[in-house]
Amino acid sequence: MESDAVDVKPQIDSTTIMNPLDPDEFKRQGYIMIDFLANYYRNVANYPVLSQVESNYLRKRLQKSAPFDPQPIEEILQDVQQHIIPGITHWQSPNFFAYFPATTSTAGFLGEMLSTGLNVVGFNWVASPAATELESIVMDWLGQELKLPETFLFSGNGGGVLLNTTCEAIVCTLVAARDKVLSHVGNDKITKLVVYASDQTHSTVQKAAQIAGIHPKNFHVIQTNKSTSFALSPEALLSAILVDLENGLIPCFLCASVGTTATTAIDPIGPLCNVAKKFGIWVHVDAAYAGSACICPEFRSFINGIEEVNSFSFNPHKWFFTNLSCCCLWVKVPSDLTSSLSTNPHFLRNKASDSKQVIDYKDWQINLSRKFNSLKLWMVLRSYGIGNLRSFIRNDVKMAKTFEELVKLDRRFEIFAPRILSLVCFRLKPSAIAHKVPIANGPQNGKLATEEFVNQVNNKLLDLINGSGKVYMTHAIVGGAFVIRCAIGTTLTEEQHVIMAWKVVQEKANSILGRTKEVSILQELNLSLPIIDLAMI
Amino acid sequence: MESDAVDVKPQIDSTTIMNPLDPDEFKRQGYIMIDFLANYYRNVANYPVLSQVESNYLRKRLQKSAPFDPQPIEEILQDVQQHIIPGITHWQSPNFFAYFPATTSTAGFLGEMLSTGLNVVGFNWVASPAATELESIVMDWLGQELKLPETFLFSGNGGGVLLNTTCEAIVCTLVAARDKVLSHVGNDKITKLVVYASDQTHSTVQKAAQIAGIHPKNFHVIQTNKSTSFALSPEALLSAILVDLENGLIPCFLCASVGTTATTAIDPIGPLCNVAKKFGIWVHVDAAYAGSACICPEFRSFINGIEEVNSFSFNPHKWFFTNLSCCCLWVKVPSDLTSSLSTNPHFLRNKASDSKQVIDYKDWQINLSRKFNSLKLWMVLRSYGIGNLRSFIRNDVKMAKTFEELVKLDRRFEIFAPRILSLVCFRLKPSAIAHKVPIANGPQNGKLATEEFVNQVNNKLLDLINGSGKVYMTHAIVGGAFVIRCAIGTTLTEEQHVIMAWKVVQEKANSILGRTKEVSILQELNLSLPIIDLAMI
Repeated sequence: MESDAVDVKPQIDSTTIMNPLDPDEFKRQGYIMIDFLANYYRNVANYPVLSQVESNYLRKRLQKSAPFDPQPIEEILQDVQQHIIPGITHWQSPNFFAYFPATTSTAGFLGEMLSTGLNVVGFNWVASPAATELESIVMDWLGQELKLPETFLFSGNGGGVLLNTTCEAIVCTLVAARDKVLSHVGNDKITKLVVYASDQTHSTVQKAAQIAGIHPKNFHVIQTNKSTSFALSPEALLSAILVDLENGLIPCFLCASVGTTATTAIDPIGPLCNVAKKFGIWVHVDAAYAGSACICPEFRSFINGIEEVNSFSFNPHKWFFTNLSCCCLWVKVPSDLTSSLSTNPHFLRNKASDSKQVIDYKDWQINLSRKFNSLKLWMVLRSYGIGNLRSFIRNDVKMAKTFEELVKLDRRFEIFAPRILSLVCFRLKPSAIAHKVPIANGPQNGKLATEEFVNQVNNKLLDLINGSGKVYMTHAIVGGAFVIRCAIGTTLTEEQHVIMAWKVVQEKANSILGRTKEVSILQELNLSLPIIDLAMI
Repeated sequence: MESDAVDVKPQIDSTTIMNPLDPDEFKRQGYIMIDFLANYYRNVANYPVLSQVESNYLRKRLQKSAPFDPQPIEEILQDVQQHIIPGITHWQSPNFFAYFPATTSTAGFLGEMLSTGLNVVGFNWVASPAATELESIVMDWLGQELKLPETFLFSGNGGGVLLNTTCEAIVCTLVAARDKVLSHVGNDKITKLVVYASDQTHSTVQKAAQIAGIHPKNFHVIQTNKSTSFALSPEALLSAILVDLENGLIPCFLCASVGTTATTAIDPIGPLCNVAKKFGIWVHVDAAYAGSACICPEFRSFINGIEEVNSFSFNPHKWFFTNLSCCCLWVKVPSDLTSSLSTNPHFLRNKASDSKQVIDYKDWQINLSRKFNSLKLWMVLRSYGIGNLRSFIRNDVKMAKTFEELVKLDRRFEIFAPRILSLVCFRLKPSAIAHKVPIANGPQNGKLATEEFVNQVNNKLLDLINGSGKVYMTHAIVGGAFVIRCAIGTTLTEEQHVIMAWKVVQEKANSILGRTKEVSILQELNLSLPIIDLAMI
């Protein structure tokens, strides 16, 4: 260890300073990393999908502090293999069916490499004109493929920007909507503004409202139900608005979802806009996952009515083969965004910006600094072409149909919500569980198990599935029911993996429901739960 | 072009689906990209530093829409070379002295490659335990090297997180501070909360206040002046607070700066905290650029008093060889952050999170999704070691001293604000300009030129410097003066580049002040400005 006393009088001999960007060394180490990752993709199917480590496993394995002396890349990668890989939940495994996929591709990876290597900061046009211009071009390209109305494209005086995530998109648009209303009613009225979402809307909207200073009581959640497949009802929205107006509140912002996280429910954009427009409410459409599918003409109808909304976002880092992070946001009136998010400090002033002939993307986002974001999306579009991208999505939907059919063939299971794209929501049926429940703790003889008990059994089933390490799925609670979500679509997933995943589900269901020679885990689960617990949950 | 009619009945033959993550193709294309970037670093010094393109140059050169068919990587990279590179302002050029450097390194690049290749989403612990755990370890490592008090480390019940930019760090801490106050005084009081900053504080703080719903009138800017080298005075802060209290406002948040953007001024943290603490104000320290230097014992005193603040951030993507984006934020009381930023939707619930034994970084940031952020910082620390990292910073400071000495040797110039680290703020002296001003339009014979005129001349000088394409510097307005900023520190900058940069400055000064045989541009500039313009500016 060096001592501070020595360091306080630093000696620098500039002839000995190493160059951390030496091109030969960059190339040597770059190749090593490429090889490492190529091997990772070759082997990823063999790792437990859900990491099996205990919390705080890594602190026990790594050094206690940063090294004083340099360490070679080979040693670092050895540590990655030995200590990091076991702690990874493998989102790129073909057996990953959790959350929504984070699709990865060679083109997406290369685009991020290029952006990272050039390492330009594109906060305004002059700081790197190509970064700004390519982004605006790519946003128009993608807008065209989604058949967005011209009003969302730069060519129609709207425009798009690449952000990191949906939450950023919501914060930016909500702040714009907020300030637009406040400019009429006065800043003191911020405590009266209302944000609307459904009980299926992503939690990010509530978070965005918290960040933007919306009064917590004024984040209004509208209930959905199974009869409308968990889509937000325009009538329910209208009722909520009317109550709020009665109470002296000011309706401000609605987030509608195309493809909710729980079940990929589709809110009816047109009818919701018909209601919202009457009250001057900003409507944002979050199509984080499902937006990608809208490049296929047969799925484009999901965003019918989009011409009425103020803003629209989707995440190519989910299902569009663009490595993290990449969220596309389009707005009809860019000045709504820039009015709220512009700063014009002296140190960034320049003739190009003053001319108002260029875009300064810093005023379209929260952050000031930004990478050359569009390269990876541009490379994905060019490397695969729209034709292949549609095929990728269609193939994932086809595999999801296969999984859905397999579920339907097993009478113990039910499809809980309609499969719309590549997500299948299923569970063990109450009736399948009822027959297996011992009389002492479960419902009486022949009657259906309580919903809570059914939920616990399905939860247990999911734990067993994920504990196998063979696949990873996650869950949702919808309409009070615990459902298992099988989200198909990682880049490496093929039909064989989907079929294998179903076999794992069946095998674990067998062990729960006692069809194997093992003791029924259902009985175990049930016996361990006193009656009072079941009643109280 | 394909027709929609055909697409509406999609035919998929899964045997023909390509694999966008085929390991062999990944490896082939990965090597090509590594070679491309290694060549870029070899040639970057030869490109004009500031891009010389006209606005909208790129739209004229690229296709009008995304291709239907795939295009090979070779063709895409040809377009990058021909069409993108000319539109880049080369932040990695050794002749880039603008803004602050965005230092790049092989290790930083490799870390981002690894994160992008693994493409795991680390929103909570279970979604990839290693992503969360390595981040918490690296934040403790770096905190130790900065000699942060234990209370900012996880080992002392504080902790750190990696965000994208300072603006994110300020939004997160400001929202935490806001909600902490509101929990006592009630949410309706949001319109009364005051945020304090100096006139040298980065504009991002004002933007963060706008985003967080602070009333625009309650963003209070405190003037600084040259006599205190543009540092924020505790007395001025106290006066501002007392006036606000008198007016029924509620002091909430102060952002102090260590190394301001304009001149790297250092606000006195300890004395500012002594004032702020009396009024329960949350103090955040933004050391975006200068924080990196604090790993050198001789510079650590810049953050003396840090034990009193609530939160502290700096950006390794500026001067710590960590490619974009990387902002470190430490807080003493993580629950202040998570109380404001937590969401706990069903689909993310899991036993590890419920146990409260793990960190879920989603609750420490705006975004939900996040990459494996810590890999690049971990690789930078290990690949170079603290010893080399200190040498890099010391060498940059040494080069800045060289530049400063060169400026001082030329009597036409002055160092406008003290050089503290690697930024030199200089300008042509009023007295150097005075002698050259024709009597008709300038000040009378022998009198000093007006400050506005001096500013215009220095502005013109900067335009000529940057128009040369040989170097790129930017400016600041401080205390009413236009000063040229020479920020030294890109990874490839060596002493020869600094000396060359000064020669460019002198050459352009000569042409302005008429020491060459060319017509003095100063005369031209002056003649084109009617007297009334000078008076009105």
